[in-house]
Amino acid sequence: MPEDENFDVTPWDVEGNVDYKKLIEKFGTERIAQGLKKEIRDQANEDHIYLKRDYFFSHRDLDKVLEENKDGDGFFLYTGVGPSGPMHIGHIVPFYFSKWLQDKFDVNLYIQVTDDERYWTGDGTMDEIDDYAEQNIMDIAAVGLDPDKTFIFRNREYMGNMYDAAVKISKQINFSVASGVFGFNSSTNIGMVFYPAIQMIPTFFEEKRCLIPAAIDQDTYWRAQRDIAEKLGHYKAAQIHSKFIPALTGPKGKMSSSKPKDAIMLDDNPEEVREKVMQRAYSGGQVTRKEQEEKGADLSVDVAYQWLKNLFLEDDGRIEEIGRKYSEGDMLTGEVKEILVEKLNEFLSKHQKRKEEKGKELKEKMMYEGNLAKKMWDREIKI
Amino acid sequence: MPEDENFDVTPWDVEGNVDYKKLIEKFGTERIAQGLKKEIRDQANEDHIYLKRDYFFSHRDLDKVLEENKDGDGFFLYTGVGPSGPMHIGHIVPFYFSKWLQDKFDVNLYIQVTDDERYWTGDGTMDEIDDYAEQNIMDIAAVGLDPDKTFIFRNREYMGNMYDAAVKISKQINFSVASGVFGFNSSTNIGMVFYPAIQMIPTFFEEKRCLIPAAIDQDTYWRAQRDIAEKLGHYKAAQIHSKFIPALTGPKGKMSSSKPKDAIMLDDNPEEVREKVMQRAYSGGQVTRKEQEEKGADLSVDVAYQWLKNLFLEDDGRIEEIGRKYSEGDMLTGEVKEILVEKLNEFLSKHQKRKEEKGKELKEKMMYEGNLAKKMWDREIKI
Repeated sequence: MPEDENFDVTPWDVEGNVDYKKLIEKFGTERIAQGLKKEIRDQANEDHIYLKRDYFFSHRDLDKVLEENKDGDGFFLYTGVGPSGPMHIGHIVPFYFSKWLQDKFDVNLYIQVTDDERYWTGDGTMDEIDDYAEQNIMDIAAVGLDPDKTFIFRNREYMGNMYDAAVKISKQINFSVASGVFGFNSSTNIGMVFYPAIQMIPTFFEEKRCLIPAAIDQDTYWRAQRDIAEKLGHYKAAQIHSKFIPALTGPKGKMSSSKPKDAIMLDDNPEEVREKVMQRAYSGGQVTRKEQEEKGADLSVDVAYQWLKNLFLEDDGRIEEIGRKYSEGDMLTGEVKEILVEKLNEFLSKHQKRKEEKGKELKEKMMYEGNLAKKMWDREIKI
Repeated sequence: MPEDENFDVTPWDVEGNVDYKKLIEKFGTERIAQGLKKEIRDQANEDHIYLKRDYFFSHRDLDKVLEENKDGDGFFLYTGVGPSGPMHIGHIVPFYFSKWLQDKFDVNLYIQVTDDERYWTGDGTMDEIDDYAEQNIMDIAAVGLDPDKTFIFRNREYMGNMYDAAVKISKQINFSVASGVFGFNSSTNIGMVFYPAIQMIPTFFEEKRCLIPAAIDQDTYWRAQRDIAEKLGHYKAAQIHSKFIPALTGPKGKMSSSKPKDAIMLDDNPEEVREKVMQRAYSGGQVTRKEQEEKGADLSVDVAYQWLKNLFLEDDGRIEEIGRKYSEGDMLTGEVKEILVEKLNEFLSKHQKRKEEKGKELKEKMMYEGNLAKKMWDREIKI
């Protein structure tokens, strides 16, 4: 899915409770309220850190997804990856969340590798993009998704099965609408102009409602889908939106594979992780020990704290304690960072081990040989 | 290939020698001069009625095609059909000319069935378009093309082999350029916006120069190809341009399948042909016999004469004699029409017989089982 670097929602905007609210108003989405959280918990028989900490905080039609699921109609998941470099922590989080949803709700997951869109919008050659796709897919395979209920496909490889659908969908979207949603102009190449149709196809893979987990800035990209879905006899795609994960260097930047020193990469070793966090993670604490003890830290901009709270520290009591102590000056930045380093390395060592041991085999299954993959290769997608 | 009904070259403009010249100036193409005609004749070891009567009258880089062919580099042919109805005489003429070129120059011919473009620009359902495609391909198969050197493919079916090429080409064309060439605007659907890339792919099927036989109004559609071909390391496509075939009802209209009474359809029987020609063919002759004998006919608007001259009456002496007598009032419209009816029915009965007897078998060969088709299905098109 395309990342528009100039999109005017920056991570900064979404720091602090007030701004989340503004963002929801701006996009016209809905907050995941307590009642809905409870419904997810009830149906999943489990809570998830991303939900309880409001890292996933906004949605469209998630209530309908849960209703339809309760009624036995089910739903399915769709997400994507744009292969333009090695993956960092921020890239893989939605896949771990998708895994949880897949496990708890027993649903299929479709993962579109947008090797066409990356070519249209980037500078990479097709070979470079193919190499990144290969690496990215191995990382996704390592997440532990169900190999018989997950289908990972590269657009350029799977287009033979999808082109009829692309032809049908693209007739429903004119240049004016596509420009409005994706910010095209007259110098946009005609491949990219066609892309909204391709991005939309997987939302119609099953005769159920599609749920898309993604950061909230992706919301606009599904407007066209929601405009035409019912006309084509299908469900509007539902979405569950996350906040942004701030870059190591602070909430003003997004993590980016093009600045690997400012991001935790999935293949970083424990030493690299320690060095990056200790040396580069933006701190909300005070400059001197004395000042910190007097004034305490600003949690809303402290990367180590934010990462722990949103993503890694499951224990409610412990994160509350850290937050209290750190903001009141009873904990130092170095101590909080130490906890993050430990959590990150625990997470990465499991991920890397699975990638090393089973990545190749799982990739083959999810792309070609698993039950869902086999079914999808035998199918012509009809809309 | 799309037909733009509003294109401001009407058949009327191309009646009469002066206007052909204007047209060539307008498009910036070149007349097929005597020297070039001779070169074709020399290399083909035969003349062709369409060339000697200037029905094919204009070109781009045809001189290079002939040079490269002489040097042993060869070339290949590419043409297309938009399946939006049953075919009439005007539709099949370029295929008969392609057959002659294929026979004489021993070259491959690629025929793109634009079932995607017809969906994007027309009102037909995919099923309707598929039915027309089926019928059209049977007619093309009946032309007698070499089944081992001809590949007929439906875009929607063959896209799996072409998508990489489409992705690469489409990056080179922006919306502004595509709009300039194809007349797109902001309400054009994004499928059609992508189409110029698809139309261009076959010009890169071989590492030789591609020659496209088509009516002159199609020239603009190849501008983008000629702009980017060399940048992509390929040849600019060459073209050989025909005049328009006037509708039965006169040079102001193009023949159209949507007005089958005003066109000679490929499945018309002899009675229908006679009736249409006798009753509907626009005459350049005078209203009464007496007037005709005094003033003679205006050959430039007489449909029967124009069809005979451009397409059907091979005998130079005879067409000259008819032209002279008819324009001087020594022949009546009915007599000229009678000759056309005879020629048309001779042509159609051969065509229909081949279609009936061998259409299905030849279609299978040219689409899937012939030498070239098999090779093309085994290939991923790389640019």
